[in-house]
Amino acid sequence: MFKRYFPILSWLPHYHGRLLGADLLAGVIVTIMVIPQSLAYALLAGLPAVVGLYASILPQLLYCVFGTSRTLAVGPVAIIALMTGAALSGVTTPGTPDYLQAALILSLLSGVMLIAMGLLRLGFFSNFLSHPVISGFLTASGILIATSQLGNLLGIESSGFTLVERLISLVPNLPSLHWPTLGIGFGTLLFLVLMRRQGKKTLMRLGLRSMLADLIAKAGPVFAVVITTLLTWHLGLAEHGVAVVGSIPQGLPALSLPWDADTSLWRALLIPALLISLVGFVESVSMGQMLAAKHRQRISPNQELIGLGGANLAAGLSSGMPVTGGLSRTVINYDAGAKTPAAGAFAALGIAVVTLSMTSLLYYLPIATLAATITVSILTLVDIPMLRQTWRYSRTDFSSMAVTIAFTLVEGVEMGIIAGVILSIGLFLYRTSRPHSALVGRVPDTEHFRNVVRHEVETASHLALLRIDESLYFANARYLEDTLYNLIATRPELEHVVLICSAVNLIDASALESLDAINAHLKDSGVTLHLAEIKGPVMDQLKRSDFLDELTGRVFLSTYAAWRELGEYSHSHPLSS
Amino acid sequence: MFKRYFPILSWLPHYHGRLLGADLLAGVIVTIMVIPQSLAYALLAGLPAVVGLYASILPQLLYCVFGTSRTLAVGPVAIIALMTGAALSGVTTPGTPDYLQAALILSLLSGVMLIAMGLLRLGFFSNFLSHPVISGFLTASGILIATSQLGNLLGIESSGFTLVERLISLVPNLPSLHWPTLGIGFGTLLFLVLMRRQGKKTLMRLGLRSMLADLIAKAGPVFAVVITTLLTWHLGLAEHGVAVVGSIPQGLPALSLPWDADTSLWRALLIPALLISLVGFVESVSMGQMLAAKHRQRISPNQELIGLGGANLAAGLSSGMPVTGGLSRTVINYDAGAKTPAAGAFAALGIAVVTLSMTSLLYYLPIATLAATITVSILTLVDIPMLRQTWRYSRTDFSSMAVTIAFTLVEGVEMGIIAGVILSIGLFLYRTSRPHSALVGRVPDTEHFRNVVRHEVETASHLALLRIDESLYFANARYLEDTLYNLIATRPELEHVVLICSAVNLIDASALESLDAINAHLKDSGVTLHLAEIKGPVMDQLKRSDFLDELTGRVFLSTYAAWRELGEYSHSHPLSS
Repeated sequence: MFKRYFPILSWLPHYHGRLLGADLLAGVIVTIMVIPQSLAYALLAGLPAVVGLYASILPQLLYCVFGTSRTLAVGPVAIIALMTGAALSGVTTPGTPDYLQAALILSLLSGVMLIAMGLLRLGFFSNFLSHPVISGFLTASGILIATSQLGNLLGIESSGFTLVERLISLVPNLPSLHWPTLGIGFGTLLFLVLMRRQGKKTLMRLGLRSMLADLIAKAGPVFAVVITTLLTWHLGLAEHGVAVVGSIPQGLPALSLPWDADTSLWRALLIPALLISLVGFVESVSMGQMLAAKHRQRISPNQELIGLGGANLAAGLSSGMPVTGGLSRTVINYDAGAKTPAAGAFAALGIAVVTLSMTSLLYYLPIATLAATITVSILTLVDIPMLRQTWRYSRTDFSSMAVTIAFTLVEGVEMGIIAGVILSIGLFLYRTSRPHSALVGRVPDTEHFRNVVRHEVETASHLALLRIDESLYFANARYLEDTLYNLIATRPELEHVVLICSAVNLIDASALESLDAINAHLKDSGVTLHLAEIKGPVMDQLKRSDFLDELTGRVFLSTYAAWRELGEYSHSHPLSS
Repeated sequence: MFKRYFPILSWLPHYHGRLLGADLLAGVIVTIMVIPQSLAYALLAGLPAVVGLYASILPQLLYCVFGTSRTLAVGPVAIIALMTGAALSGVTTPGTPDYLQAALILSLLSGVMLIAMGLLRLGFFSNFLSHPVISGFLTASGILIATSQLGNLLGIESSGFTLVERLISLVPNLPSLHWPTLGIGFGTLLFLVLMRRQGKKTLMRLGLRSMLADLIAKAGPVFAVVITTLLTWHLGLAEHGVAVVGSIPQGLPALSLPWDADTSLWRALLIPALLISLVGFVESVSMGQMLAAKHRQRISPNQELIGLGGANLAAGLSSGMPVTGGLSRTVINYDAGAKTPAAGAFAALGIAVVTLSMTSLLYYLPIATLAATITVSILTLVDIPMLRQTWRYSRTDFSSMAVTIAFTLVEGVEMGIIAGVILSIGLFLYRTSRPHSALVGRVPDTEHFRNVVRHEVETASHLALLRIDESLYFANARYLEDTLYNLIATRPELEHVVLICSAVNLIDASALESLDAINAHLKDSGVTLHLAEIKGPVMDQLKRSDFLDELTGRVFLSTYAAWRELGEYSHSHPLSS
């Protein structure tokens, strides 16, 4: 019980020296690697760069205590940063103290919501974000983020949080294009793309071991930061108009609560906080599950909610921004050989040391370098083949995806995800409200029954075997009545109708009413209604109503039993289609 | 095509004398019978009594042209009047000209929405009002209406549109209880209840024929109106404080459109209009279907939307109020022998004649008489046995019902129906997100397979036959992964897993991703994944993906085929539970 809520107790008591060595090394590597992206994602959210560092310290420590994944690394991530920026600029003005305060409120709200969902075991809520919706959302967000960085890469101003707003805001500033910034930005972009695509291969050809080559290739952003910072400092580019990070306050953030914010701000951030929580949870938990599966470990989604909630509360208390388990930082941690959450704790301490003493080294770091880092890392989110694949597989799923993309690009991230979820649920309900049903016949010489239109099967004219391919519930109860009344209207010779319920997983009170009506109506028409292959749980429930007493016909265990009883006294004949 | 949109063409050309006689008699009876309820429902909505008459003329004529039911009678009904009152008092003050105008706007909006839904063939939308939600809503509305009439029956003031508001508003006025009003109100109430319960029986015992006795018993409200009006006039009770209908403008309503209303009023009434449209449609169409079934006729739900939409447009144009097919007026029409919609047209003309020339006769009609009429007619909506029955059958359905009742009573009719619909959809989604699944084995000596826990069946230890009892879609895709990973973790001797898809009616893109992941994961663990009994439409769709190429095992037509192939080479043994 205690261990369930404090997963740290499952590994810390057994911690030993060999684990310490591996975790310490991983911690150092992660510290160096995540600094550029932490700064970059804070800027992406419209916040000062140092907020990204703050959000990588205490949140990660909290996650170590409450999280269930061994190797998940928690901190600012691209999508959450984008959503944070959209939420904040909806309620305050970027660059003001209010904006910073709103970021803390957003983190706190998200933390409280995640913890509440965890305690109430509401992790299943995230299941309603379907794969096409998530995939469409990531693709559209990738495009949004890339365009948001165009201004930084070109050295001109851009603003707005939808695609159109951003592109339009760029146009009037195009003439003031800043060539040195553009050089740094696109130079870094090129370098990073090459490192990512060819780095490991080239380094291995130069004689490096696979693991080391991989590590160096992944450190591309670190090299880019070091090189462009030195270059900018040496050439005095900051004085020539290249935007740099500038002075970052040294020292750890003070712990504080934004009590003085007015309540309307809290209320305005409720929905954004909920969406950020859900998206962050889905991103984090699917990655955590993937990693756990590799080692035959398991993570607990509901405890993960508590872990991530704790991390966000910590972010809100320590001048941070909303956080979640990040793909790239987790992969770095995993590849660097992390064995337990202690590695994350060491990385957090490492970043704390940097924040305490080394922020002055980041003064000349060009914003364009960070923009290039963001751009390269998020373009992996854009998944065009998935679009094609989904189109081919299902137009329904594709339409959810397309609507999510369109709304995200045009109306922003929040409307995008809301529209996607509503549409995918609506389409599912619509689909189940018009269930597929099939008249079936016997596959000759077997006890198996299939659709008369698709297979060559035996049938009998006085007997209709109707397989209902959906649970019977309020949305399709009336549709079932229509189907049956049409059936008996078109086949006057019918004496028996058998409803095959092998695919009926539920009969709710509305459907029960309809079955009652159908039974009575068929009785008036001289047709007997039978049921077959009712599942255990459905049968248990039917027994609690009067329906089985009223039923004119019988309940058969199998379709074959019904066929033997009702079908064979007449001459059965094969029917081909 | 033309006939589809003008159902009048399907009966008017064949109209003949014998039908005319029957319809004319029915028309006269309906005219007399519906006047009291038309006046009463207008008062229930907070409108002048005459509005109820206006709403019984033109709307019924329009329905005759566009509606598909032969005997449905259209006009003001209790539930819609209650919803109208709630909607109007939310945006304007009862008794003002604005209030009247808002009623017209509500009718027009409802008319436009119904017609649009009909043309777009959106009749299926009403399916999402589940039976427990409707039943709960009717029960709660019945209670609300009864309490709303308490004030009129006692001769004191009451206000508000939720149960609590109403009861509280009564208390301070209780000392001013008006005894003559109370006498008329409760006297009428007693008379009407007796007529309803004992009237027919008593009259038959007095020697009347069954049909005539029934008709006279049903005319209870008409006698009550006549007697109490005469009494009030004769005793001069109006001068002693008994509230009466008072002077009603004589003549037909002028046709007009409320163009001068400001747009915010139109916008504020959008949601109420939608809810009124849906509830009215459901009430009307379910009654229409019931009556049509009695004569083996059929009604077209989408054309019904157009018919009811036309009726509401007509109501909005002719100083009326929202209307729909009413239970009591339809039953009167049907029992009086109506054969075609012409009966409704005659009744509409009859009411027009009354409105033109006889409204002065209604001057002394006591409001308390109308209140008693409403109270008796709506108490039939309160269906307590249904509550018990639903509780017994399904706690899920019961909870939808209970929430609908609670919200309707506490938060009003609109919130009640919205809460009910959202909850019933949410519960359905929750249920499908945690699907039932069962390991099955062979029923000895058959080709039939059932749950190993419920039946005595044959199994094999290296083979798991898993029947999934739900369509596979985004909400349960991850749940499926969990189920399978737990299965292979607990049975190390497993070599083959067969997913039996007889109940799987859909595999969406999210579930396909999960199946891909499961296939790969099982492969890593040395377990082969097979599928069986995939339905035609699902198989068609799977063929449009790469999944079948990746699948480590095979696709079997039937579970028995899989069993023969995979199960029998090891020693199979019966397993009892």
